[in-house]
Amino acid sequence: MGKDKKFVQEITDMEKDFAQWYTDVVKKAELIDYSSVRGCMILQPYGYAIWELIQQQLDKRFKETGHKNVYMPMFIPESLLQKEKDHVEGFAPEVAWVTHGGSEQLTERLCVRPTSETLFCEHYANVIQSYRDLPKLYNQWCSVVRWEKTTRPFLRTLEFLWQEGHTAHATAEEAQEETIRMLNVYAEFCENVLAIPVVKGRKTDKEKFAGAKETYTIESLMHDGKALQSGTSHNFGDGFARAFGIQYTDKNNELKYVHQTSWGMTTRLIGAVIMVHGDNSGLVLPPRIAPTQLVIIPIAAHKEGVLEKARELKERLSAIVRVDLDDSDKMPGWKFSEYEMKGVPFRLEIGPKDIENNQVVLVRRDTREKITVSMDELETRIPELMDSLQRDLLEKARAMRDTKTYVARTFDEFKEIITNTPGFIKAMWCGDEACEIKIKEETGATSRCIPFEQEKISDTCVCCGKPAKDMLYWGKAY
Amino acid sequence: MGKDKKFVQEITDMEKDFAQWYTDVVKKAELIDYSSVRGCMILQPYGYAIWELIQQQLDKRFKETGHKNVYMPMFIPESLLQKEKDHVEGFAPEVAWVTHGGSEQLTERLCVRPTSETLFCEHYANVIQSYRDLPKLYNQWCSVVRWEKTTRPFLRTLEFLWQEGHTAHATAEEAQEETIRMLNVYAEFCENVLAIPVVKGRKTDKEKFAGAKETYTIESLMHDGKALQSGTSHNFGDGFARAFGIQYTDKNNELKYVHQTSWGMTTRLIGAVIMVHGDNSGLVLPPRIAPTQLVIIPIAAHKEGVLEKARELKERLSAIVRVDLDDSDKMPGWKFSEYEMKGVPFRLEIGPKDIENNQVVLVRRDTREKITVSMDELETRIPELMDSLQRDLLEKARAMRDTKTYVARTFDEFKEIITNTPGFIKAMWCGDEACEIKIKEETGATSRCIPFEQEKISDTCVCCGKPAKDMLYWGKAY
Ligand SMILES: [Zn+2]
Ligand SMILES: [Zn+2]
Repeated sequence: MGKDKKFVQEITDMEKDFAQWYTDVVKKAELIDYSSVRGCMILQPYGYAIWELIQQQLDKRFKETGHKNVYMPMFIPESLLQKEKDHVEGFAPEVAWVTHGGSEQLTERLCVRPTSETLFCEHYANVIQSYRDLPKLYNQWCSVVRWEKTTRPFLRTLEFLWQEGHTAHATAEEAQEETIRMLNVYAEFCENVLAIPVVKGRKTDKEKFAGAKETYTIESLMHDGKALQSGTSHNFGDGFARAFGIQYTDKNNELKYVHQTSWGMTTRLIGAVIMVHGDNSGLVLPPRIAPTQLVIIPIAAHKEGVLEKARELKERLSAIVRVDLDDSDKMPGWKFSEYEMKGVPFRLEIGPKDIENNQVVLVRRDTREKITVSMDELETRIPELMDSLQRDLLEKARAMRDTKTYVARTFDEFKEIITNTPGFIKAMWCGDEACEIKIKEETGATSRCIPFEQEKISDTCVCCGKPAKDMLYWGKAY
Repeated sequence: MGKDKKFVQEITDMEKDFAQWYTDVVKKAELIDYSSVRGCMILQPYGYAIWELIQQQLDKRFKETGHKNVYMPMFIPESLLQKEKDHVEGFAPEVAWVTHGGSEQLTERLCVRPTSETLFCEHYANVIQSYRDLPKLYNQWCSVVRWEKTTRPFLRTLEFLWQEGHTAHATAEEAQEETIRMLNVYAEFCENVLAIPVVKGRKTDKEKFAGAKETYTIESLMHDGKALQSGTSHNFGDGFARAFGIQYTDKNNELKYVHQTSWGMTTRLIGAVIMVHGDNSGLVLPPRIAPTQLVIIPIAAHKEGVLEKARELKERLSAIVRVDLDDSDKMPGWKFSEYEMKGVPFRLEIGPKDIENNQVVLVRRDTREKITVSMDELETRIPELMDSLQRDLLEKARAMRDTKTYVARTFDEFKEIITNTPGFIKAMWCGDEACEIKIKEETGATSRCIPFEQEKISDTCVCCGKPAKDMLYWGKAY
């Protein structure tokens, strides 16, 4: 039992030190390992398997909405990056530069892609001639590099995995529709797959993407009251098209610029899952992204028939869930801790008594509720239980988010909330960037979004007292 | 019809200029586009969809043999690359170097991974302690960079997509078993999925991977008689383990070095598919990797009921094949050329007469055979026809390969074959690298492998006349 204890003690309580708790979970659940490359992480099998499940389910949604996958080069010549002014200003300070190939110095530096707008634009200028070539609905799964000063597993790393959608349309209206369509796909995915509720809205000009006309975002709230930007969708208008000369002839044989969008989600979603659902025993995974949805743990495995039954169950249940069996010689208590740490949604205990009674005991990871189920009903009961755990995680996360969403009418109120009860703050804003900057400087909170669902909290800006334009979500963010 | 003609004329005959034919197919089938980054290609939707089908079917085989996917950083610090002497000598001359992050010069250069042995070794040194941690069976899907002087779509590019398996084992025997197991997985995949027959064998010391004890290979033969190395599997022995200090305590509590393997396949497989199965009308895709397996082309589409029937068929057939319908207003002849160019295995023609007779006409891409099938039998006949096309492609490729496999007993014979009838040459070898070098210098042919299936062609080396050790496959190679 000494080993069990040690295992559990190694995790910091989230209430004591949330950042340390996060790091502990990430390491103990074997999601990542550090490498000798500063700020780059190794996605271990368990972490990568979660990413594969995220990928599959996002990719399915992209294909259902008519998108096709492509692959662009990982290098961008410096001159190409510089074609769109705002874009290069946003990204040039944080890219990695390749200056040598083999022993030769390159005549032009190449940056490792921080994002691929410029490459897609160059390609679109090549392949788009007529209105018949539109829309182009492309997506790419790859890794990108941003030279960050400080890094944190999943949340901010020099290199990360993501998808980037890039589309070109005949009209401004179609581009806007696409931008919102993909934001909605992201929101639906977060709620139904990751069990994370999100606030949908538009970024202020200050917070929008380098080169975008409008940036839309989904914002989620972590257990510690900090916000996490979980996905963004940008409408570029025809800005990139003008910079790269992407034109098509319309039905009247007139030359027009295309209208473009891009949208992305990254491995930081795994960070969100950890910080929204996790607890002091470790990770809690929603069934839909759990590499193992149910782990079978034999009790008194040395007794006759127990292991045989456990193996038979594994075989049988593999038809309905992603199932694992731990038939190692470790103590059941050690195994319980291990799979709780890894966030496996259900464990199934099977011992001599259970076999005698033609039953198994299922234990939910989130509530630790013990549920006795007849052997004859596993095929119907387990999927039901999976679904209700998935649903309950979303509701619990929504309740947590709602509890930590506050309203501030004055700047004093705003400051008090940020200091004492971190979370989302809903507050009115005059539309002036000066107020946004002042709020950030004095409180550390940034504007998260101008939510689609507006409420009129008061008539005046929370910062300057002038007439208010919009209600914003504010918060400290990862 | 003018447009049809132009479409077809734009492809060079493979007999006239094979290299140009290849480039034409790659572009006209919309597999790739060139980018402004020298030697880096853009995988367009059709090319990438083929890669996705290759990935899925390979990944399934990796998982069935117990492997797990991970993701390693794309950068390798110079000092890490240098840890294994032979390895760095092999790769350092052809890597891309990152020297700046943002505006700062790095204290240590990072190379963009040309392959990830060193990163896996560093990680394995971290996570392997005891025999209980073995074997480690990891795989990674990613892109790698090698700074090649001359490039060619799919076959040799600065950046390419691949998978790299990296495993660590307790014993030399297990490592050798794994090396051969994965070579066999590759060979089975090539034959059953890509319809490409391969020769399995071992590389000579001269041709083996930088840092490997043994390299095994599968070699295939292209339509022009050139060989293509299609997949390799390396046994590293404990060389990397000693360089990186990867040790474990065995059951007797003794400290031992692990034994390692690695194995990889790349997007060059798509190049092989083009050059083995393609013809003067374009690409010919084996059904198992065809993004569209059957395309429906309405005949006399303006006649009543034709389009409706075509749409109904698309809906119905989507349950059994990857099906597309071209209901554009282009002429059927133009469409025939278009989908032949893209290598779609079957087209289905449906016109007023067919509807009257309750039938459709299927046309095979490879033989152009027309097959009339009753509407009532589509669900049974189409899968049968797909399978037989898949099988026939393999047999045709095998026959082509066998026809172009020659035997040389003397150096004069060898030279004559290489000059007049390019293909594989089976010839005896004394085992001396000097003969390998001489043959390469005088004929341009390299040793492809020492095949597992040995034949005794003569007693003496084809080059020097000394006693022969092994029979080798030789050939000019991509
Ligand atoms: Zn204000
Ligand atoms: Zn010799």
